[in-house]
Amino acid sequence: MKAAPSLDDLARLARRLADAAAQVTLPHFRAADLATDDKGAVGMFDPVTAADREAESAIRAILARERPNDAVLGEEHAALEGKSGFTWVIDPIDGTRAFISGLPVWGTLIALDDGTHGVLGIVDQPFTGERFIGINRPGGGHAMLEHRGCSRPIATRRQRALGEATVFTTAPELFTENERAGFEAIRAAARLTRYGTDCYAYALLAMGHVDIVIEAGLKAYDIAAPKALIEAAGGVVTGWRGEDCRWGGRVLAAAHPALHAQALELLAGIDRD
Amino acid sequence: MKAAPSLDDLARLARRLADAAAQVTLPHFRAADLATDDKGAVGMFDPVTAADREAESAIRAILARERPNDAVLGEEHAALEGKSGFTWVIDPIDGTRAFISGLPVWGTLIALDDGTHGVLGIVDQPFTGERFIGINRPGGGHAMLEHRGCSRPIATRRQRALGEATVFTTAPELFTENERAGFEAIRAAARLTRYGTDCYAYALLAMGHVDIVIEAGLKAYDIAAPKALIEAAGGVVTGWRGEDCRWGGRVLAAAHPALHAQALELLAGIDRD
Repeated sequence: MKAAPSLDDLARLARRLADAAAQVTLPHFRAADLATDDKGAVGMFDPVTAADREAESAIRAILARERPNDAVLGEEHAALEGKSGFTWVIDPIDGTRAFISGLPVWGTLIALDDGTHGVLGIVDQPFTGERFIGINRPGGGHAMLEHRGCSRPIATRRQRALGEATVFTTAPELFTENERAGFEAIRAAARLTRYGTDCYAYALLAMGHVDIVIEAGLKAYDIAAPKALIEAAGGVVTGWRGEDCRWGGRVLAAAHPALHAQALELLAGIDRD
Repeated sequence: MKAAPSLDDLARLARRLADAAAQVTLPHFRAADLATDDKGAVGMFDPVTAADREAESAIRAILARERPNDAVLGEEHAALEGKSGFTWVIDPIDGTRAFISGLPVWGTLIALDDGTHGVLGIVDQPFTGERFIGINRPGGGHAMLEHRGCSRPIATRRQRALGEATVFTTAPELFTENERAGFEAIRAAARLTRYGTDCYAYALLAMGHVDIVIEAGLKAYDIAAPKALIEAAGGVVTGWRGEDCRWGGRVLAAAHPALHAQALELLAGIDRD
Protein backbone atom coordinates (compact mmCIF):
# COMPACT_ATOMS: atom_id res chain seq x y z
CA MET A 1 0.00 0.00 0.00
CA LYS A 2 1.26 3.46 -0.93
CA ALA A 3 1.90 6.04 1.77
CA ALA A 4 -0.65 8.84 1.92
CA PRO A 5 0.49 11.72 -0.29
CA SER A 6 1.95 14.78 1.41
CA LEU A 7 0.62 18.26 0.76
CA ASP A 8 3.72 18.85 -1.36
CA ASP A 9 2.85 15.79 -3.45
CA LEU A 10 -0.67 17.12 -3.87
CA ALA A 11 0.72 20.52 -4.88
CA ARG A 12 2.80 18.82 -7.58
CA LEU A 13 -0.35 17.14 -8.86
CA ALA A 14 -2.21 20.46 -8.76
CA ARG A 15 0.52 22.00 -10.93
CA ARG A 16 0.00 19.19 -13.46
CA LEU A 17 -3.71 20.00 -13.47
CA ALA A 18 -2.94 23.66 -14.16
CA ASP A 19 -0.52 22.68 -16.96
CA ALA A 20 -3.19 20.49 -18.54
CA ALA A 21 -5.74 23.31 -18.39
CA ALA A 22 -3.29 25.78 -19.92
CA GLN A 23 -2.69 23.48 -22.89
CA VAL A 24 -6.42 23.74 -23.61
CA THR A 25 -7.08 27.39 -22.77
CA LEU A 26 -4.10 29.13 -24.37
CA PRO A 27 -4.79 28.07 -27.98
CA HIS A 28 -8.35 29.42 -27.57
CA PHE A 29 -7.25 32.70 -25.98
CA ARG A 30 -7.51 35.47 -28.60
CA ALA A 31 -8.41 32.92 -31.28
CA ALA A 32 -10.43 34.57 -34.03
CA ASP A 33 -12.95 31.75 -34.20
CA LEU A 34 -13.74 31.32 -30.48
CA ALA A 35 -17.50 30.75 -30.18
CA THR A 36 -19.34 31.74 -27.01
CA ASP A 37 -22.61 30.45 -25.60
CA ASP A 38 -24.67 32.55 -23.23
CA LYS A 39 -25.65 30.73 -20.05
CA GLY A 40 -26.91 33.89 -18.37
CA ALA A 41 -30.13 33.24 -16.49
CA VAL A 42 -30.49 36.66 -14.90
CA GLY A 43 -30.47 38.96 -17.90
CA MET A 44 -26.70 39.47 -17.88
CA PHE A 45 -24.46 38.05 -20.56
CA ASP A 46 -22.69 35.07 -19.00
CA PRO A 47 -20.49 33.50 -21.63
CA VAL A 48 -19.03 30.01 -21.67
CA THR A 49 -16.74 28.63 -24.33
CA ALA A 50 -15.37 25.31 -25.49
CA ALA A 51 -12.18 26.34 -23.68
CA ASP A 52 -13.99 26.31 -20.32
CA ARG A 53 -15.54 22.89 -20.86
CA GLU A 54 -12.51 21.18 -22.39
CA ALA A 55 -10.09 22.56 -19.79
CA GLU A 56 -12.21 21.17 -16.96
CA SER A 57 -12.42 17.82 -18.76
CA ALA A 58 -8.63 17.73 -19.05
CA ILE A 59 -8.30 18.36 -15.30
CA ARG A 60 -10.93 15.74 -14.44
CA ALA A 61 -9.26 13.12 -16.62
CA ILE A 62 -6.05 13.42 -14.59
CA LEU A 63 -7.91 13.39 -11.27
CA ALA A 64 -9.85 10.27 -12.32
CA ARG A 65 -6.54 8.46 -12.79
CA GLU A 66 -4.53 9.92 -9.91
CA ARG A 67 -7.13 10.60 -7.22
CA PRO A 68 -10.15 8.40 -7.99
CA ASN A 69 -11.47 8.60 -4.43
CA ASP A 70 -11.54 12.39 -4.20
CA ALA A 71 -14.68 14.45 -4.80
CA VAL A 72 -14.64 17.02 -7.63
CA LEU A 73 -16.64 20.23 -7.75
CA GLY A 74 -16.19 22.19 -10.97
CA GLU A 75 -18.01 24.97 -12.78
CA GLU A 76 -18.66 23.25 -16.08
CA HIS A 77 -19.49 19.60 -15.30
CA ALA A 78 -21.54 17.70 -12.71
CA ALA A 79 -20.22 17.37 -9.16
CA LEU A 80 -18.49 14.07 -8.45
CA GLU A 81 -18.78 12.50 -5.00
CA GLY A 82 -15.77 10.98 -3.29
CA LYS A 83 -14.87 8.91 -0.26
CA SER A 84 -11.42 10.20 0.69
CA GLY A 85 -12.69 13.33 2.45
CA PHE A 86 -10.83 15.51 -0.08
CA THR A 87 -12.63 17.71 -2.63
CA TRP A 88 -10.99 19.35 -5.65
CA VAL A 89 -12.73 22.65 -6.39
CA ILE A 90 -12.09 23.85 -9.93
CA ASP A 91 -12.90 26.75 -12.19
CA PRO A 92 -11.19 26.09 -15.52
CA ILE A 93 -11.56 29.74 -16.60
CA ASP A 94 -12.49 32.23 -13.92
CA GLY A 95 -13.24 35.45 -15.79
CA THR A 96 -14.63 34.13 -19.06
CA ARG A 97 -15.74 37.70 -19.93
CA ALA A 98 -12.09 38.78 -19.69
CA PHE A 99 -11.03 35.69 -21.63
CA ILE A 100 -13.31 36.45 -24.58
CA SER A 101 -12.17 40.09 -24.49
CA GLY A 102 -8.51 39.14 -24.87
CA LEU A 103 -7.65 40.50 -21.42
CA PRO A 104 -5.18 38.36 -19.43
CA VAL A 105 -6.78 38.75 -15.98
CA TRP A 106 -8.69 35.45 -16.18
CA GLY A 107 -7.25 32.41 -14.49
CA THR A 108 -7.55 28.71 -13.90
CA LEU A 109 -8.52 28.11 -10.26
CA ILE A 110 -7.65 24.84 -8.52
CA ALA A 111 -8.24 24.22 -4.83
CA LEU A 112 -8.13 21.21 -2.57
CA ASP A 113 -10.43 21.11 0.46
CA ASP A 114 -9.75 18.57 3.23
CA GLY A 115 -13.28 18.71 4.65
CA THR A 116 -12.56 21.53 7.09
CA HIS A 117 -10.72 24.11 4.98
CA GLY A 118 -8.85 24.69 1.75
CA VAL A 119 -5.34 23.28 2.09
CA LEU A 120 -4.14 24.21 -1.38
CA GLY A 121 -5.01 26.98 -3.82
CA ILE A 122 -3.68 27.82 -7.27
CA VAL A 123 -4.49 30.85 -9.41
CA ASP A 124 -2.87 30.24 -12.79
CA GLN A 125 -2.59 32.88 -15.56
CA PRO A 126 -0.91 31.06 -18.43
CA PHE A 127 -0.67 34.00 -20.86
CA THR A 128 1.48 36.09 -18.51
CA GLY A 129 3.04 32.86 -17.25
CA GLU A 130 2.20 33.60 -13.61
CA ARG A 131 1.24 30.77 -11.28
CA PHE A 132 0.25 31.74 -7.73
CA ILE A 133 0.30 28.82 -5.26
CA GLY A 134 -0.75 28.74 -1.63
CA ILE A 135 0.11 25.78 0.61
CA ASN A 136 -2.32 26.47 3.42
CA ARG A 137 -1.18 24.40 6.39
CA PRO A 138 -3.14 25.45 9.49
CA GLY A 139 -0.91 27.69 11.57
CA GLY A 140 1.90 27.81 9.03
CA GLY A 141 1.13 28.25 5.36
CA HIS A 142 3.28 29.71 2.66
CA ALA A 143 2.61 31.12 -0.79
CA MET A 144 4.71 31.60 -3.87
CA LEU A 145 4.67 33.04 -7.37
CA GLU A 146 6.13 30.85 -10.08
CA HIS A 147 6.91 32.91 -13.18
CA ARG A 148 8.99 31.90 -16.18
CA GLY A 149 11.06 29.32 -14.37
CA CYS A 150 11.55 31.31 -11.17
CA SER A 151 9.76 30.81 -7.87
CA ARG A 152 9.62 33.41 -5.13
CA PRO A 153 7.75 33.66 -1.85
CA ILE A 154 4.85 36.11 -1.76
CA ALA A 155 2.93 37.60 1.16
CA THR A 156 0.12 40.08 1.71
CA ARG A 157 1.07 43.58 2.84
CA ARG A 158 0.36 44.10 6.51
CA GLN A 159 0.75 47.81 7.19
CA ARG A 160 -2.14 49.61 5.47
CA ALA A 161 -5.30 50.79 7.20
CA LEU A 162 -8.50 51.27 5.21
CA GLY A 163 -7.74 54.93 4.44
CA GLU A 164 -4.62 53.94 2.47
CA ALA A 165 -6.09 50.77 0.99
CA THR A 166 -6.41 49.75 -2.65
CA VAL A 167 -9.74 47.96 -3.21
CA PHE A 168 -10.72 45.76 -6.16
CA THR A 169 -14.03 44.39 -7.34
CA THR A 170 -15.11 43.01 -10.70
CA ALA A 171 -18.00 45.37 -11.53
CA PRO A 172 -20.36 47.50 -9.44
CA GLU A 173 -23.34 46.12 -11.41
CA LEU A 174 -22.78 42.67 -9.90
CA PHE A 175 -24.05 43.82 -6.49
CA THR A 176 -27.68 43.94 -5.38
CA GLU A 177 -28.87 47.29 -4.06
CA ASN A 178 -28.03 46.46 -0.43
CA GLU A 179 -24.70 44.96 -1.38
CA ARG A 180 -23.94 48.07 -3.42
CA ALA A 181 -24.36 50.17 -0.27
CA GLY A 182 -21.81 47.95 1.49
CA PHE A 183 -19.37 48.21 -1.38
CA GLU A 184 -19.83 51.99 -1.55
CA ALA A 185 -19.05 52.31 2.18
CA ILE A 186 -15.75 50.46 1.62
CA ARG A 187 -14.99 52.43 -1.52
CA ALA A 188 -15.62 55.78 0.18
CA ALA A 189 -13.26 54.87 3.01
CA ALA A 190 -10.45 53.50 0.83
CA ARG A 191 -7.84 55.40 -1.15
CA LEU A 192 -8.16 53.73 -4.54
CA THR A 193 -10.79 51.46 -6.10
CA ARG A 194 -10.31 49.49 -9.31
CA TYR A 195 -12.63 47.30 -11.34
CA GLY A 196 -12.56 44.45 -13.75
CA THR A 197 -10.00 41.93 -12.63
CA ASP A 198 -11.77 38.67 -11.70
CA CYS A 199 -9.45 36.22 -9.91
CA TYR A 200 -6.36 38.25 -10.75
CA ALA A 201 -7.33 40.73 -8.02
CA TYR A 202 -7.01 37.99 -5.40
CA ALA A 203 -3.57 37.10 -6.74
CA LEU A 204 -2.52 40.76 -6.48
CA LEU A 205 -3.77 40.77 -2.88
CA ALA A 206 -1.80 37.60 -2.12
CA MET A 207 1.37 39.18 -3.53
CA GLY A 208 1.00 42.42 -1.57
CA HIS A 209 -0.18 45.02 -4.12
CA VAL A 210 -3.89 45.16 -3.29
CA ASP A 211 -5.40 45.39 0.20
CA ILE A 212 -9.07 44.43 -0.17
CA VAL A 213 -11.17 42.48 -2.66
CA ILE A 214 -14.91 42.64 -2.13
CA GLU A 215 -17.43 40.64 -4.15
CA ALA A 216 -20.86 39.03 -3.91
CA GLY A 217 -22.75 36.18 -5.51
CA LEU A 218 -19.69 33.94 -5.74
CA LYS A 219 -19.80 30.18 -6.10
CA ALA A 220 -17.48 27.73 -4.32
CA TYR A 221 -15.33 27.34 -7.44
CA ASP A 222 -14.87 31.15 -7.65
CA ILE A 223 -13.47 31.55 -4.17
CA ALA A 224 -11.98 28.24 -2.94
CA ALA A 225 -8.58 28.67 -4.61
CA PRO A 226 -8.20 32.43 -3.99
CA LYS A 227 -9.15 31.93 -0.32
CA ALA A 228 -6.57 29.19 0.28
CA LEU A 229 -3.94 31.22 -1.59
CA ILE A 230 -4.59 34.42 0.36
CA GLU A 231 -4.73 32.66 3.74
CA ALA A 232 -1.41 30.96 2.95
CA ALA A 233 0.01 34.41 2.12
CA GLY A 234 -1.14 35.93 5.42
CA GLY A 235 -4.51 37.44 4.55
CA VAL A 236 -8.06 36.88 5.79
CA VAL A 237 -11.02 35.81 3.63
CA THR A 238 -14.57 35.52 5.00
CA GLY A 239 -18.16 36.36 4.20
CA TRP A 240 -19.49 39.86 4.91
CA ARG A 241 -20.52 38.77 8.42
CA GLY A 242 -17.21 37.10 9.16
CA GLU A 243 -18.59 33.66 8.36
CA ASP A 244 -16.83 30.89 6.42
CA CYS A 245 -17.20 31.65 2.71
CA ARG A 246 -15.45 28.70 1.13
CA TRP A 247 -18.69 27.50 -0.46
CA GLY A 248 -19.38 30.96 -1.93
CA GLY A 249 -21.60 33.96 -1.25
CA ARG A 250 -20.48 37.47 -0.36
CA VAL A 251 -16.74 37.65 0.06
CA LEU A 252 -14.43 40.08 1.85
CA ALA A 253 -10.73 39.39 1.38
CA ALA A 254 -8.25 41.56 3.27
CA ALA A 255 -4.49 41.71 3.50
CA HIS A 256 -4.33 41.49 7.32
CA PRO A 257 -6.66 40.89 10.28
CA ALA A 258 -6.94 44.51 11.49
CA LEU A 259 -7.90 45.72 8.02
CA HIS A 260 -10.40 42.89 7.69
CA ALA A 261 -11.99 43.86 11.02
CA GLN A 262 -12.16 47.51 9.94
CA ALA A 263 -13.92 46.61 6.70
CA LEU A 264 -16.30 44.13 8.39
CA GLU A 265 -17.43 46.90 10.71
CA LEU A 266 -18.47 49.04 7.74
CA LEU A 267 -20.41 46.12 6.29
CA ALA A 268 -22.19 45.40 9.60
CA GLY A 269 -24.65 48.22 8.96
CA ILE A 270 -25.82 46.72 5.67
CA ASP A 271 -29.07 44.77 5.67
CA ARG A 272 -29.23 41.40 4.06
CA ASP A 273 -31.22 41.33 0.85
CA MET B 1 22.47 67.10 -45.40
CA LYS B 2 20.74 63.90 -44.36
CA ALA B 3 17.63 62.67 -46.18
CA ALA B 4 14.38 63.18 -44.32
CA PRO B 5 13.61 60.09 -42.23
CA SER B 6 10.91 57.77 -43.48
CA LEU B 7 7.98 56.74 -41.33
CA ASP B 8 9.68 53.36 -40.89
CA ASP B 9 12.82 55.12 -39.61
CA LEU B 10 10.67 57.07 -37.17
CA ALA B 11 8.97 53.84 -36.06
CA ARG B 12 12.40 52.35 -35.31
CA LEU B 13 13.20 55.41 -33.22
CA ALA B 14 9.83 55.10 -31.45
CA ARG B 15 10.67 51.49 -30.54
CA ARG B 16 13.95 52.72 -29.00
CA LEU B 17 11.94 55.23 -26.95
CA ALA B 18 9.66 52.43 -25.71
CA ASP B 19 12.68 50.27 -24.87
CA ALA B 20 14.22 53.12 -22.87
CA ALA B 21 10.98 53.67 -20.96
CA ALA B 22 10.66 49.94 -20.19
CA GLN B 23 14.15 49.89 -18.69
CA VAL B 24 12.92 52.49 -16.20
CA THR B 25 9.39 51.28 -15.54
CA LEU B 26 9.85 47.52 -15.15
CA PRO B 27 12.21 47.62 -12.14
CA HIS B 28 9.64 49.84 -10.36
CA PHE B 29 6.65 47.64 -11.28
CA ARG B 30 5.65 45.62 -8.20
CA ALA B 31 8.65 46.94 -6.27
CA ALA B 32 7.91 46.91 -2.55
CA ASP B 33 9.35 50.39 -1.99
CA LEU B 34 7.59 52.28 -4.79
CA ALA B 35 6.51 55.66 -3.40
CA THR B 36 3.50 57.47 -4.83
CA ASP B 37 2.65 61.15 -4.77
CA ASP B 38 -0.93 62.33 -5.12
CA LYS B 39 -1.36 64.98 -7.80
CA GLY B 40 -5.16 64.78 -7.68
CA ALA B 41 -6.69 68.23 -7.86
CA VAL B 42 -10.31 67.13 -8.01
CA GLY B 43 -10.69 65.01 -4.90
CA MET B 44 -9.75 61.76 -6.60
CA PHE B 45 -6.52 59.96 -5.85
CA ASP B 46 -4.26 60.60 -8.86
CA PRO B 47 -0.93 58.95 -8.21
CA VAL B 48 2.39 59.68 -9.87
CA THR B 49 5.62 57.85 -9.19
CA ALA B 50 9.31 58.22 -9.85
CA ALA B 51 8.79 55.64 -12.60
CA ASP B 52 6.50 58.04 -14.51
CA ARG B 53 8.90 60.96 -14.28
CA GLU B 54 12.10 59.05 -14.98
CA ALA B 55 10.65 57.11 -17.90
CA GLU B 56 9.58 60.35 -19.60
CA SER B 57 13.03 61.82 -18.95
CA ALA B 58 14.64 58.78 -20.60
CA ILE B 59 12.44 59.24 -23.67
CA ARG B 60 13.13 62.97 -23.85
CA ALA B 61 16.88 62.46 -23.59
CA ILE B 62 16.84 60.32 -26.74
CA LEU B 63 14.56 62.74 -28.59
CA ALA B 64 16.83 65.68 -27.66
CA ARG B 65 19.73 63.92 -29.41
CA GLU B 66 17.90 62.34 -32.35
CA ARG B 67 15.07 64.77 -33.11
CA PRO B 68 16.09 68.14 -31.63
CA ASN B 69 13.72 70.10 -33.88
CA ASP B 70 10.56 68.16 -32.97
CA ALA B 71 8.09 69.36 -30.36
CA VAL B 72 7.45 67.14 -27.31
CA LEU B 73 4.21 66.95 -25.33
CA GLY B 74 4.40 64.63 -22.33
CA GLU B 75 2.41 64.08 -19.18
CA GLU B 76 5.15 64.60 -16.62
CA HIS B 77 7.35 67.44 -17.89
CA ALA B 78 6.84 70.82 -19.57
CA ALA B 79 5.86 70.94 -23.24
CA LEU B 80 8.77 71.57 -25.61
CA GLU B 81 8.22 73.60 -28.76
CA GLY B 82 9.70 72.51 -32.07
CA LYS B 83 10.21 73.78 -35.58
CA SER B 84 9.96 70.63 -37.70
CA GLY B 85 6.17 70.43 -37.63
CA PHE B 86 6.37 67.07 -35.84
CA THR B 87 5.21 66.57 -32.24
CA TRP B 88 5.97 63.54 -30.07
CA VAL B 89 3.08 62.93 -27.67
CA ILE B 90 4.08 60.78 -24.71
CA ASP B 91 2.59 59.22 -21.63
CA PRO B 92 5.36 57.28 -19.90
CA ILE B 93 2.87 55.31 -17.79
CA ASP B 94 -0.75 55.45 -18.83
CA GLY B 95 -2.68 53.78 -16.03
CA THR B 96 -0.56 54.67 -13.02
CA ARG B 97 -3.35 53.37 -10.75
CA ALA B 98 -3.01 49.96 -12.40
CA PHE B 99 0.78 50.26 -12.19
CA ILE B 100 0.78 50.82 -8.43
CA SER B 101 -1.73 47.96 -8.02
CA GLY B 102 0.55 45.47 -9.76
CA LEU B 103 -1.90 45.04 -12.64
CA PRO B 104 -0.27 44.79 -16.10
CA VAL B 105 -2.85 46.83 -18.05
CA TRP B 106 -0.82 50.06 -17.90
CA GLY B 107 1.28 51.05 -20.87
CA THR B 108 3.83 53.44 -22.27
CA LEU B 109 2.19 55.55 -24.98
CA ILE B 110 4.24 57.11 -27.76
CA ALA B 111 2.71 58.95 -30.69
CA LEU B 112 4.05 61.14 -33.48
CA ASP B 113 1.81 63.86 -34.90
CA ASP B 114 2.72 65.49 -38.22
CA GLY B 115 0.62 68.60 -37.64
CA THR B 116 -2.52 67.19 -39.22
CA HIS B 117 -2.87 63.74 -37.65
CA GLY B 118 -1.07 61.04 -35.70
CA VAL B 119 1.18 59.12 -38.10
CA LEU B 120 2.56 56.69 -35.55
CA GLY B 121 1.22 55.20 -32.32
CA ILE B 122 2.74 52.72 -29.87
CA VAL B 123 1.06 51.11 -26.85
CA ASP B 124 3.79 49.21 -25.02
CA GLN B 125 3.17 46.78 -22.11
CA PRO B 126 6.62 45.63 -21.07
CA PHE B 127 5.55 43.16 -18.34
CA THR B 128 3.53 41.00 -20.75
CA GLY B 129 6.05 41.86 -23.46
CA GLU B 130 3.39 43.15 -25.86
CA ARG B 131 4.15 46.09 -28.13
CA PHE B 132 1.28 47.34 -30.30
CA ILE B 133 2.41 49.57 -33.18
CA GLY B 134 0.34 51.47 -35.71
CA ILE B 135 1.90 53.03 -38.81
CA ASN B 136 -0.90 55.37 -39.75
CA ARG B 137 -0.29 56.42 -43.35
CA PRO B 138 -3.36 58.28 -44.66
CA GLY B 139 -5.33 55.90 -46.81
CA GLY B 140 -3.17 52.89 -46.06
CA GLY B 141 -2.00 52.22 -42.54
CA HIS B 142 -1.05 48.96 -40.93
CA ALA B 143 -0.73 47.77 -37.36
CA MET B 144 1.16 44.97 -35.68
CA LEU B 145 1.70 43.25 -32.37
CA GLU B 146 5.30 42.51 -31.46
CA HIS B 147 5.46 39.90 -28.69
CA ARG B 148 8.47 37.94 -27.49
CA GLY B 149 10.41 38.18 -30.72
CA CYS B 150 7.45 37.65 -33.06
CA SER B 151 5.58 40.26 -35.05
CA ARG B 152 2.14 39.74 -36.53
CA PRO B 153 -0.34 42.03 -38.26
CA ILE B 154 -3.39 43.02 -36.25
CA ALA B 155 -6.70 44.56 -37.29
CA THR B 156 -9.97 45.59 -35.68
CA ARG B 157 -12.95 43.27 -36.09
CA ARG B 158 -15.41 44.59 -38.62
CA GLN B 159 -18.53 42.48 -38.33
CA ARG B 160 -20.20 43.30 -35.00
CA ALA B 161 -23.13 45.66 -34.57
CA LEU B 162 -23.71 47.38 -31.23
CA GLY B 163 -25.96 44.59 -29.91
CA GLU B 164 -23.07 42.09 -30.08
CA ALA B 165 -20.38 44.55 -29.04
CA THR B 166 -17.91 44.33 -26.16
CA VAL B 167 -17.45 47.79 -24.59
CA PHE B 168 -14.63 48.93 -22.30
CA THR B 169 -14.17 51.97 -20.10
CA THR B 170 -11.85 52.63 -17.18
CA ALA B 171 -14.36 53.40 -14.42
CA PRO B 172 -17.94 54.71 -14.39
CA GLU B 173 -16.97 57.27 -11.72
CA LEU B 174 -14.77 59.11 -14.23
CA PHE B 175 -17.81 60.43 -16.10
CA THR B 176 -19.78 63.57 -15.23
CA GLU B 177 -23.52 63.08 -14.78
CA ASN B 178 -24.31 63.89 -18.43
CA GLU B 179 -21.45 61.78 -19.67
CA ARG B 180 -22.64 58.93 -17.49
CA ALA B 181 -25.98 59.01 -19.30
CA GLY B 182 -24.15 58.67 -22.62
CA PHE B 183 -22.07 55.79 -21.35
CA GLU B 184 -25.16 54.06 -19.94
CA ALA B 185 -26.92 54.33 -23.30
CA ILE B 186 -24.00 52.56 -24.96
CA ARG B 187 -23.73 50.01 -22.16
CA ALA B 188 -27.45 49.17 -22.32
CA ALA B 189 -27.25 48.60 -26.07
CA ALA B 190 -24.06 46.50 -26.01
CA ARG B 191 -23.65 42.84 -25.12
CA LEU B 192 -20.78 43.05 -22.63
CA THR B 193 -19.20 45.92 -20.69
CA ARG B 194 -15.90 45.70 -18.85
CA TYR B 195 -14.02 48.15 -16.65
CA GLY B 196 -10.57 48.94 -15.50
CA THR B 197 -8.18 48.61 -18.36
CA ASP B 198 -6.69 52.01 -19.20
CA CYS B 199 -4.76 52.01 -22.50
CA TYR B 200 -4.84 48.22 -22.74
CA ALA B 201 -8.49 48.42 -23.82
CA TYR B 202 -7.47 50.38 -26.93
CA ALA B 203 -4.85 47.76 -27.73
CA LEU B 204 -7.49 45.02 -27.43
CA LEU B 205 -9.71 47.02 -29.78
CA ALA B 206 -6.85 47.38 -32.27
CA MET B 207 -6.24 43.62 -32.21
CA GLY B 208 -9.90 42.70 -32.73
CA HIS B 209 -11.15 41.54 -29.31
CA VAL B 210 -13.05 44.64 -28.15
CA ASP B 211 -15.45 46.69 -30.24
CA ILE B 212 -15.88 50.02 -28.43
CA VAL B 213 -13.89 52.03 -25.91
CA ILE B 214 -15.65 55.06 -24.48
CA GLU B 215 -14.00 57.56 -22.15
CA ALA B 216 -14.09 61.22 -21.15
CA GLY B 217 -11.76 63.81 -19.71
CA LEU B 218 -8.75 62.54 -21.64
CA LYS B 219 -5.62 64.56 -22.35
CA ALA B 220 -3.71 64.51 -25.64
CA TYR B 221 -1.09 62.16 -24.21
CA ASP B 222 -3.84 59.67 -23.17
CA ILE B 223 -5.32 59.33 -26.64
CA ALA B 224 -2.76 60.28 -29.31
CA ALA B 225 -1.05 56.88 -29.45
CA PRO B 226 -4.19 54.72 -29.08
CA LYS B 227 -5.91 56.78 -31.79
CA ALA B 228 -3.10 56.39 -34.32
CA LEU B 229 -2.84 52.67 -33.47
CA ILE B 230 -6.56 52.01 -33.88
CA GLU B 231 -6.85 54.03 -37.10
CA ALA B 232 -3.92 52.08 -38.53
CA ALA B 233 -5.73 48.86 -37.55
CA GLY B 234 -8.96 49.88 -39.30
CA GLY B 235 -10.96 51.50 -36.50
CA VAL B 236 -12.43 54.96 -35.98
CA VAL B 237 -11.61 57.28 -33.05
CA THR B 238 -13.35 60.64 -32.57
CA GLY B 239 -14.95 62.80 -29.91
CA TRP B 240 -18.55 62.18 -28.86
CA ARG B 241 -19.78 64.57 -31.58
CA GLY B 242 -17.61 63.03 -34.26
CA GLU B 243 -14.98 65.77 -33.91
CA ASP B 244 -11.20 65.32 -33.94
CA CYS B 245 -10.12 64.16 -30.47
CA ARG B 246 -6.37 63.93 -30.87
CA TRP B 247 -5.84 66.69 -28.31
CA GLY B 248 -8.12 64.99 -25.77
CA GLY B 249 -11.65 65.31 -24.39
CA ARG B 250 -14.46 62.77 -24.69
CA VAL B 251 -13.43 59.82 -26.82
CA LEU B 252 -15.37 57.18 -28.72
CA ALA B 253 -13.24 54.49 -30.33
CA ALA B 254 -14.97 51.88 -32.47
CA ALA B 255 -13.83 48.87 -34.46
CA HIS B 256 -15.44 49.93 -37.75
CA PRO B 257 -17.26 52.95 -39.25
CA ALA B 258 -20.83 51.56 -39.10
CA LEU B 259 -20.47 50.69 -35.41
CA HIS B 260 -18.97 54.11 -34.73
CA ALA B 261 -21.94 55.77 -36.43
CA GLN B 262 -24.38 53.64 -34.42
CA ALA B 263 -22.72 54.62 -31.12
CA LEU B 264 -22.45 58.31 -32.08
CA GLU B 265 -26.19 58.37 -32.68
CA LEU B 266 -26.84 57.20 -29.10
CA LEU B 267 -24.52 59.91 -27.79
CA ALA B 268 -26.20 62.64 -29.87
CA GLY B 269 -29.03 62.92 -27.35
CA ILE B 270 -26.66 63.71 -24.48
CA ASP B 271 -26.31 67.35 -23.44
CA ARG B 272 -22.92 68.87 -22.97
CA ASP B 273 -22.04 69.61 -19.36
